[in-house]
Amino acid sequence: MSFWGWGWADKFPDAEARRLLAQQLGALTGGAGLALAPRDPPSLDAVTVPRSRLEVPPALAGFVSARADERVGHTYGKSFRDLVRGFAGDFEAAPDLVAHPKSEDEIEAVLSFAADHNVAVIPFGGGTSVVGGVEPAFGKGATYRGAISLDLRGLDRVLEVDPVSRAARIQAGATGPGLEAQLAQHGFTLRHFPQSFEFSTLGGWIATHAGGHFATLYTHIDDLTESVRMLTPSGLYETRRLPASGAGPGPDRLVLGSEGILGVITEAWMRVHARPRWRASASVHFRELKAAVAAVREIAQAGLYPANCRLLDQREALLNRVAADGSHVLLLGFESADHPLAPWLERALAIAGAHRGICPRGPVLREEGAKSGHEGAAGSWRSAFLEAPYLQSALVSLGALVDTFETACTWDRFDALHAAVTAAVEDALVRACGGGLLSCRFTHVYPDGPAPYYTFVAAGRPGAELEQWAQIKRAAADTLAAHGATITHHHAVGRLHRPWYDRERPPLFAAALRAAKATLDPKGILNPGVLLDP
Amino acid sequence: MSFWGWGWADKFPDAEARRLLAQQLGALTGGAGLALAPRDPPSLDAVTVPRSRLEVPPALAGFVSARADERVGHTYGKSFRDLVRGFAGDFEAAPDLVAHPKSEDEIEAVLSFAADHNVAVIPFGGGTSVVGGVEPAFGKGATYRGAISLDLRGLDRVLEVDPVSRAARIQAGATGPGLEAQLAQHGFTLRHFPQSFEFSTLGGWIATHAGGHFATLYTHIDDLTESVRMLTPSGLYETRRLPASGAGPGPDRLVLGSEGILGVITEAWMRVHARPRWRASASVHFRELKAAVAAVREIAQAGLYPANCRLLDQREALLNRVAADGSHVLLLGFESADHPLAPWLERALAIAGAHRGICPRGPVLREEGAKSGHEGAAGSWRSAFLEAPYLQSALVSLGALVDTFETACTWDRFDALHAAVTAAVEDALVRACGGGLLSCRFTHVYPDGPAPYYTFVAAGRPGAELEQWAQIKRAAADTLAAHGATITHHHAVGRLHRPWYDRERPPLFAAALRAAKATLDPKGILNPGVLLDP
Repeated sequence: MSFWGWGWADKFPDAEARRLLAQQLGALTGGAGLALAPRDPPSLDAVTVPRSRLEVPPALAGFVSARADERVGHTYGKSFRDLVRGFAGDFEAAPDLVAHPKSEDEIEAVLSFAADHNVAVIPFGGGTSVVGGVEPAFGKGATYRGAISLDLRGLDRVLEVDPVSRAARIQAGATGPGLEAQLAQHGFTLRHFPQSFEFSTLGGWIATHAGGHFATLYTHIDDLTESVRMLTPSGLYETRRLPASGAGPGPDRLVLGSEGILGVITEAWMRVHARPRWRASASVHFRELKAAVAAVREIAQAGLYPANCRLLDQREALLNRVAADGSHVLLLGFESADHPLAPWLERALAIAGAHRGICPRGPVLREEGAKSGHEGAAGSWRSAFLEAPYLQSALVSLGALVDTFETACTWDRFDALHAAVTAAVEDALVRACGGGLLSCRFTHVYPDGPAPYYTFVAAGRPGAELEQWAQIKRAAADTLAAHGATITHHHAVGRLHRPWYDRERPPLFAAALRAAKATLDPKGILNPGVLLDP
Repeated sequence: MSFWGWGWADKFPDAEARRLLAQQLGALTGGAGLALAPRDPPSLDAVTVPRSRLEVPPALAGFVSARADERVGHTYGKSFRDLVRGFAGDFEAAPDLVAHPKSEDEIEAVLSFAADHNVAVIPFGGGTSVVGGVEPAFGKGATYRGAISLDLRGLDRVLEVDPVSRAARIQAGATGPGLEAQLAQHGFTLRHFPQSFEFSTLGGWIATHAGGHFATLYTHIDDLTESVRMLTPSGLYETRRLPASGAGPGPDRLVLGSEGILGVITEAWMRVHARPRWRASASVHFRELKAAVAAVREIAQAGLYPANCRLLDQREALLNRVAADGSHVLLLGFESADHPLAPWLERALAIAGAHRGICPRGPVLREEGAKSGHEGAAGSWRSAFLEAPYLQSALVSLGALVDTFETACTWDRFDALHAAVTAAVEDALVRACGGGLLSCRFTHVYPDGPAPYYTFVAAGRPGAELEQWAQIKRAAADTLAAHGATITHHHAVGRLHRPWYDRERPPLFAAALRAAKATLDPKGILNPGVLLDP
């Protein structure tokens, strides 16, 4: 694994490939990227990492380490800021210890040591947070004696499968591929495929409202969660397996989105699916974004529930090799383990057609086992989607600024929001970088509104990248807040989004959450600074 | 309105009609109902209501009353216990004052008076709680100087409609018919039709996780709630209008199911629907309950999302005039404002057919405006459904024991749960009443489990009805708890379900909720005894 960038180190492109990338980017950003050139990635021997402030406690020595490489590998998530600092070899924020528990007893031992010694504990899954959710940075005034990163990946088993109710009990440290491989042995799949799928973990998904594969209906991991089990400094918090309940405010709901501040999620019963047998898909091209948005809104309100309903604006379509003719493209897909889907797709295409969407390659209907048809635009999209985080790391090595932000709003506000975001971010790109690219897609859609997702790319000035980036990020987030959109639909809050999250939530909810945390984590050792001040 | 029974007083049947009912019930309960005979309903002049312990505060005199009839009308909900005590003229539990605010300022004035004078406040919507949710009974050790029932029905307007996002801002005191009539002027409908629809209010629905019309997908009012506004003793708690958000634990989720203990819900943005234009329905008969359950499970897991998917066991089918031949009947219905539904219904019927379900009258496909086809079993069911609460009041006047209880469980547990509930309740009916009837239906179904709903009827011994009833209720609730089912899917907790709710929720969630309440309601004046001890 790369200690500073995304994913596997051997997938990082060589200097020649990155030189080509720099040329492409220069062309795309209109020459503003003149200075871009591949720099060598850092070497682990040369990084800055402070001395650990904690000794490994003898009782925990079997699974706790103070080794520098371990600490470096648990310092950051994978946000743009993290990549830039990591590329520069700056690991000043490293945790003092890293724990690799393999059981709940070992987790309890860590919590208990930490509570006794005023040490902060940061639950760590795949380390793919893009919002500073796993960085040991607690803000001024915090007086912890040190920090332990609690890596949950040793708890990675599917423990039990209930084929009748279609549910599985899964340990929180299981990664996407790990849990899918185990579920496949039982003929099931969770079908939760965030962009971080390869590395992120079930516990991380639950803790952050991860957004997944389904563009409608089961959009967040929340919708797939039947019950949870969490260890807190005050003891075990476990909810009952139920399809639904009307008994008081939902105990699961306090855990979903809790970002490691209330306890350590150790396992969950998850709703799983049979593997889809039928698929129906199409890509629809629009000349005007407004018409495309109107079509998507009507489809989202029609009760058809497509699994894929991703609208790419013309730039996204271009960058992801889905269309090169200036079209905005809607990727539509239905899937089912139960029935063929022609009527569903036909109706969605009729709606799109009424909004002047055209479907140049026609619809594709496929059945498992039958000869696979061309995957077309959806296939291009999927491979570009999974490569994007690797691409971001490569671009960082060129000195580029590249990041994404996402939100959700009601449909009535989208036009004004999108115009304002575009104006504010393009203006900030010019001011900070002399220009750059902004693109937009919808990752998920609801009857009452879309979840727009933005990507920006520009050329950075060596050494000034974080400052330039902060200027653009602030312009974006301030605009979201001013338009009543949320600061995050599925990236979470972490440490990065705190200022805007604090303005978004009701102050009395913040007070109630603070009171709940004081009950579950009375010494305030869990992930300080995330969601609440230490 | 009846001051002791369900709904409109003039819908209470006369003595002759009730004599006929007694005969029918005698036949159904196998002669165990020998003693049943119509008794005269109580008169308001003759009821027992204690002196009010509070004077009307001069500042609140415009909308607060201490009149006996007002206090009587706000003493109980509509549970079996409430009806029996009301029929006996026992209103010992009456609140001391009743407030009819017409604005948030007036609600704040009540909260502020109550906090200053150690007076309990009970938010009151339609007064249709079947779990003791609105009764001023606070348990031993409570030291309130009195209780105010806060009737929200003066806040009954649809304030704003957003036709683009399909959402409406609605005041919490609006009743089902009241808000539907206002929404209809804009071409929309909320389509939330609990059995209490005629009288219950939006705020009550939100506070209790009310279960509605949709048998799948949008089963609870939670799923239709976009944002909420709540006045607490600590100030205003208002969430942002969003289709979804990933920013921390959901602030709406603390309000949904809060049963009046955290604040007074004053309004909410609700997701509304276009009026359905196409409908497709069928009633499917099964000889074996097991086969019917298997069919429903497969339909619930197929991704078809029927609006109606109610399975009536043979007794429910008989009592509700849906089938008299001993069949178990599945009422299936799809509805859409967007598209015809033949493919959806065909697939659901194919699943049912594979489980040996037959459809004697065939499917019914209807389009709005077209000549309405026969409504068949679904029509019989709907009218019986809406009459049931009136019937319960009439039966109470005969000295019958009649009540319902409901739950939800995962599919793998249903067979054992159902067998155990049947055995335990039938045994309790014999021991308490010498016999009686128990029937079951599924009101809502999920991919991972059903929501079974039970009705029991027996003949009571005059004066001993509450004791007999408690014996049966306890047998039912203990069995649910022993099988890991929830104490309520949509009736809520109130005061009636507290013992089982306390065993069901994680103890640390109870502690967190207590801490949240101490923040929002520091003097503990709101609905004491519900969800938490005073």
